[in-house]
Amino acid sequence: MKAAVVPAFNAPLEIRDVEVPEPAAGQVLVKIEASGLCHTDIHAAHGDWPVKPKMPLIPGHEGVGTVVAVGDGVRTPKVGSRVALPWLGKACGSCRYCIAGRETYCLRPAYMGYTIDGGYAEYALGYASHVVKVPDSVSSFEAAPIACAGVTTYAALKSAAPQPAETVMVVGVGGLGHLGLQYGKVFGCRTIAVDVEDDKLALAQALGADVVVDARGDQQAQVAAAGGADIALITVPSPKVMAAAHAALNPLGRLVLVGLPADNQVTLPVFETVLKGIRVQGSLVGTRNDLADCYALHAAGRTKVIAEPVALEDVNACFDRVLAGKVPARLVFDLN
Amino acid sequence: MKAAVVPAFNAPLEIRDVEVPEPAAGQVLVKIEASGLCHTDIHAAHGDWPVKPKMPLIPGHEGVGTVVAVGDGVRTPKVGSRVALPWLGKACGSCRYCIAGRETYCLRPAYMGYTIDGGYAEYALGYASHVVKVPDSVSSFEAAPIACAGVTTYAALKSAAPQPAETVMVVGVGGLGHLGLQYGKVFGCRTIAVDVEDDKLALAQALGADVVVDARGDQQAQVAAAGGADIALITVPSPKVMAAAHAALNPLGRLVLVGLPADNQVTLPVFETVLKGIRVQGSLVGTRNDLADCYALHAAGRTKVIAEPVALEDVNACFDRVLAGKVPARLVFDLN
Amino acid sequence: MKAAVVPAFNAPLEIRDVEVPEPAAGQVLVKIEASGLCHTDIHAAHGDWPVKPKMPLIPGHEGVGTVVAVGDGVRTPKVGSRVALPWLGKACGSCRYCIAGRETYCLRPAYMGYTIDGGYAEYALGYASHVVKVPDSVSSFEAAPIACAGVTTYAALKSAAPQPAETVMVVGVGGLGHLGLQYGKVFGCRTIAVDVEDDKLALAQALGADVVVDARGDQQAQVAAAGGADIALITVPSPKVMAAAHAALNPLGRLVLVGLPADNQVTLPVFETVLKGIRVQGSLVGTRNDLADCYALHAAGRTKVIAEPVALEDVNACFDRVLAGKVPARLVFDLN
Amino acid sequence: MKAAVVPAFNAPLEIRDVEVPEPAAGQVLVKIEASGLCHTDIHAAHGDWPVKPKMPLIPGHEGVGTVVAVGDGVRTPKVGSRVALPWLGKACGSCRYCIAGRETYCLRPAYMGYTIDGGYAEYALGYASHVVKVPDSVSSFEAAPIACAGVTTYAALKSAAPQPAETVMVVGVGGLGHLGLQYGKVFGCRTIAVDVEDDKLALAQALGADVVVDARGDQQAQVAAAGGADIALITVPSPKVMAAAHAALNPLGRLVLVGLPADNQVTLPVFETVLKGIRVQGSLVGTRNDLADCYALHAAGRTKVIAEPVALEDVNACFDRVLAGKVPARLVFDLN
Repeated sequence: MKAAVVPAFNAPLEIRDVEVPEPAAGQVLVKIEASGLCHTDIHAAHGDWPVKPKMPLIPGHEGVGTVVAVGDGVRTPKVGSRVALPWLGKACGSCRYCIAGRETYCLRPAYMGYTIDGGYAEYALGYASHVVKVPDSVSSFEAAPIACAGVTTYAALKSAAPQPAETVMVVGVGGLGHLGLQYGKVFGCRTIAVDVEDDKLALAQALGADVVVDARGDQQAQVAAAGGADIALITVPSPKVMAAAHAALNPLGRLVLVGLPADNQVTLPVFETVLKGIRVQGSLVGTRNDLADCYALHAAGRTKVIAEPVALEDVNACFDRVLAGKVPARLVFDLN
Repeated sequence: MKAAVVPAFNAPLEIRDVEVPEPAAGQVLVKIEASGLCHTDIHAAHGDWPVKPKMPLIPGHEGVGTVVAVGDGVRTPKVGSRVALPWLGKACGSCRYCIAGRETYCLRPAYMGYTIDGGYAEYALGYASHVVKVPDSVSSFEAAPIACAGVTTYAALKSAAPQPAETVMVVGVGGLGHLGLQYGKVFGCRTIAVDVEDDKLALAQALGADVVVDARGDQQAQVAAAGGADIALITVPSPKVMAAAHAALNPLGRLVLVGLPADNQVTLPVFETVLKGIRVQGSLVGTRNDLADCYALHAAGRTKVIAEPVALEDVNACFDRVLAGKVPARLVFDLN
Repeated sequence: MKAAVVPAFNAPLEIRDVEVPEPAAGQVLVKIEASGLCHTDIHAAHGDWPVKPKMPLIPGHEGVGTVVAVGDGVRTPKVGSRVALPWLGKACGSCRYCIAGRETYCLRPAYMGYTIDGGYAEYALGYASHVVKVPDSVSSFEAAPIACAGVTTYAALKSAAPQPAETVMVVGVGGLGHLGLQYGKVFGCRTIAVDVEDDKLALAQALGADVVVDARGDQQAQVAAAGGADIALITVPSPKVMAAAHAALNPLGRLVLVGLPADNQVTLPVFETVLKGIRVQGSLVGTRNDLADCYALHAAGRTKVIAEPVALEDVNACFDRVLAGKVPARLVFDLN
Repeated sequence: MKAAVVPAFNAPLEIRDVEVPEPAAGQVLVKIEASGLCHTDIHAAHGDWPVKPKMPLIPGHEGVGTVVAVGDGVRTPKVGSRVALPWLGKACGSCRYCIAGRETYCLRPAYMGYTIDGGYAEYALGYASHVVKVPDSVSSFEAAPIACAGVTTYAALKSAAPQPAETVMVVGVGGLGHLGLQYGKVFGCRTIAVDVEDDKLALAQALGADVVVDARGDQQAQVAAAGGADIALITVPSPKVMAAAHAALNPLGRLVLVGLPADNQVTLPVFETVLKGIRVQGSLVGTRNDLADCYALHAAGRTKVIAEPVALEDVNACFDRVLAGKVPARLVFDLN
């Protein structure tokens, strides 16, 4: 099968012909139809983070396709089902976090396209327990970005317990942000979109943002004029951006972090945090329930996916485009 | 009446004879019997924080005494009632935070011993709506530290939603910490006490801490050996201490900040915050309900107050002792 | 001024010319422009419930109009402001429920159009602290039903903590139900509307209900076919309807009661309640924050009000129409 | 091996010599040391409930003992570990309730001593994933009642989100109630114990109940005099008792049901439920986390188990004693 392989940290990816893997007990083999490109894949290929991925690596945690074979003991999903292979490849099911319904914080997880091979290939293995069914009315192309960009922002907002009529500020209107903005609406909130590029600001407007803030100007003044933010969802992994969003929060505001900056340190003011009762909280992707919810919401017409189909052969050029910020919200490898 | 007055920022306090104030409509005049010394009073006298107190100032937000006169329209408390005059002198009752039951984040608050005169005096004015009744079985001497050190740590823990059998780590076993430790037990939690002084560690042991960690040694190793912390309550306003506690947190851990460092900046790692789903949250004192709860818990024998009675005339020496760390958990001015 | 007065329990209302009241300290005088008719007003006039209203009584707790005079000490709202006068005329602000942000359960409340005179008149008195500002873009006619029918269903759903992609079943698509259905969407939920009349079912469809169930047929089968309900909001005060909705709940389902049946007793199965972890919960109107949220949501275009303007002189005929079920979602007295 | 077997509904149990079962893949074989007798076992033997158990049946869902063999694929627990075999024999791990951390509401569960054989025997099979480790410092004899009576009342209270200084009323001071009362304290609450027998009331006193109410007298007056209840935990499966407890609730009170009455119907007043914002909620046993918490709390000295060791051969006499109410809090079969 064709696969895009990272041979070593920081080396360009290679399009290789590798053997189709066989599903072991509990696994399913999925013929990939669409596979989203997440910035995390680039960090993985570069070995940017404290915990390193397997190497060589087939990246990808937004793979969607059809089950073509199942391993021993697998009763569901059946061959022919269409499923997503998200970041959380597998959770143990028996640590206190899994038992408590917080499987993304599992003590013994497998991560797709990181600790195990992912969806940048014609076929990929997933665990039957953790692949998530895609509704018939949701195309694989649209299902792909929802598998990570969607569920990550959805679960992040959910962790902040948004209440209707609260104001959600989404910083960065890219792959994550354009979906986060729409989830803000799903939670009944008023939304403020923040970006520094004209096309992103236009996209935010088109997606129904109540207020659009051009951060090339005075972000703080614009957000304050809009009544401040109760929740700020940061999809731009920059400590400076996080601190600016912290300053824009109302009392009892929540600053939600999902992205990992190269520079791992964020500096925040204690006085304002205490006096305003502010919360700064990290959130990691979402559970199987969260992803099923995201698909149900999409099937119900409550979200739109903005993405561009690209060829897997162009993976290195695509990485360059993402690094240069020259992409619509998401690039999705078309493997049909 | 006798009062300790801060004449100007950084000047020594003066014991002055000032006129007994008269209660305006909605106010009560309280004959103070005991008045705790909180580190905040020293910050107020020094003008350490971004928002400055009135000047000259009578400090004190742990005053407890008996109502001796009431202003127009006051039906309760009655003359003769014993009440506490906590930090939250008054909240507006009509901003969205007050209506939501989060009055400590009121948009138009009055703070005792900060924006209005406080309890370092023989008499003090309070607002009838916001003084809190002290049960008969709780002495004024014990009620004083609970009015701030108690309710602040109680509400801080409550904001972290502790569950029984979770582990609460309390860093700093002083005025706040010695009560926070006991509230950890009240919430059904296992407790780890952290300090750097022998007498504080011995106090923690005596108060029933399950694990006592001497931070002069390897704090992280000791906490890890004890299973890590689910909640860390920081009563030592040091960014370095906050960062060390962050590193000791389990997945889904909560770092709760209540104290305000002179150096206002805390630096925290984003990677661990996101990967572990950690929350960093500020908490400001507590509501009238919280303080009533603290008194009920004390009356029920669930907490002990460790404090030393001192004379108001010795206020400057007392400030010096606090700054030198040469005090038991709390100093309380005896005004009987 | 003209007012509709209940002279005695079960007597027809009389249109009388009564004196315009004067605002006491803390009160505002409001020139009523629109005033909704709630079924509760009929119960009040009939003395149906265990706790009886004042008599004679001017009913009405959906009055909306413009402040024309204020009593002593009132700084806000100002003369000229447009406000709603909801069921919760006043809460004490100092009981444990008020302090906790649950003012609708205040121990010493005043209820508009029940314990104090209400909005079936050209002028009404309200308490400055508890009238709620109406945004400019929301007409008084539309603001009226939101003041009770809206906020009651909004707060009821909120008390059940709906999560996006959960299924909310709204039983009864009348004054309350037609708004409850829309709030279900606001919370991101899938909605099932249940009624027994063709025009109500058509209204539900028009308002975007995902599933419409005609309860003249087999309600349980239809709801089961639609996947069951996670939350059932009962706006029809019938014990039989409540029990039928209980049977339609999924595990962890919540049955939310807001209406008061003449027959006060509801009988429910314990086995299913325990085995499925079901909650049956009452909810009483909403707080000032809740109502402000409802107005903000309406101003943002997220709800529509279905109502018919009627003349106050026709109040008795209107009562008859409501009792006969011959009304659109809501009747609103036009007092302009 | 020796086992107590229910041969048919309503027939006396028989002590039989049956073959020791062999653990299949994913299972463990446990040599039972202690096995509690829960009233549910009697209901199972009588076929009292809508859903019937397997027949013939070895009852028992409070079995505790040592793993002596494991099936294929079991890595933990190891042979030699001491574990409990609670009611929730197995949950599927993949339905929305399991994923959400609510495994006791699993759509495809196995129940020990009900749908599969239980702990009234020298050996029993459990699922490796769902047996719960017992700490060394907790004896099997004490661990047995905690496995159901403990965790059921613990999880029931937890589902009501008790806050310190709230009042928990526990109705019935038997197997469940005597532990529920202690968990009330663990949550920081004030406790009211209600019973109708002198020895149970004395036990409640000895266990530290703050108020003891003899329901042979005027229960409502006594509870009202004690300030009412915020949470009522009903361990007596009687609709009349449930209704009496409902009437004793404060605003925002929670009525928690865990037991299943023979007469399945409970009748409750809607008016009070709505006006006071009361919740009536069912709760079914507890999760693996909950049980681990209960054991940790017991190991920490926060609970005491009151129980009497009995011989398995006396099982029919023991059932009679339970039905006659002639037992201390719990009977535990000693199988050592």
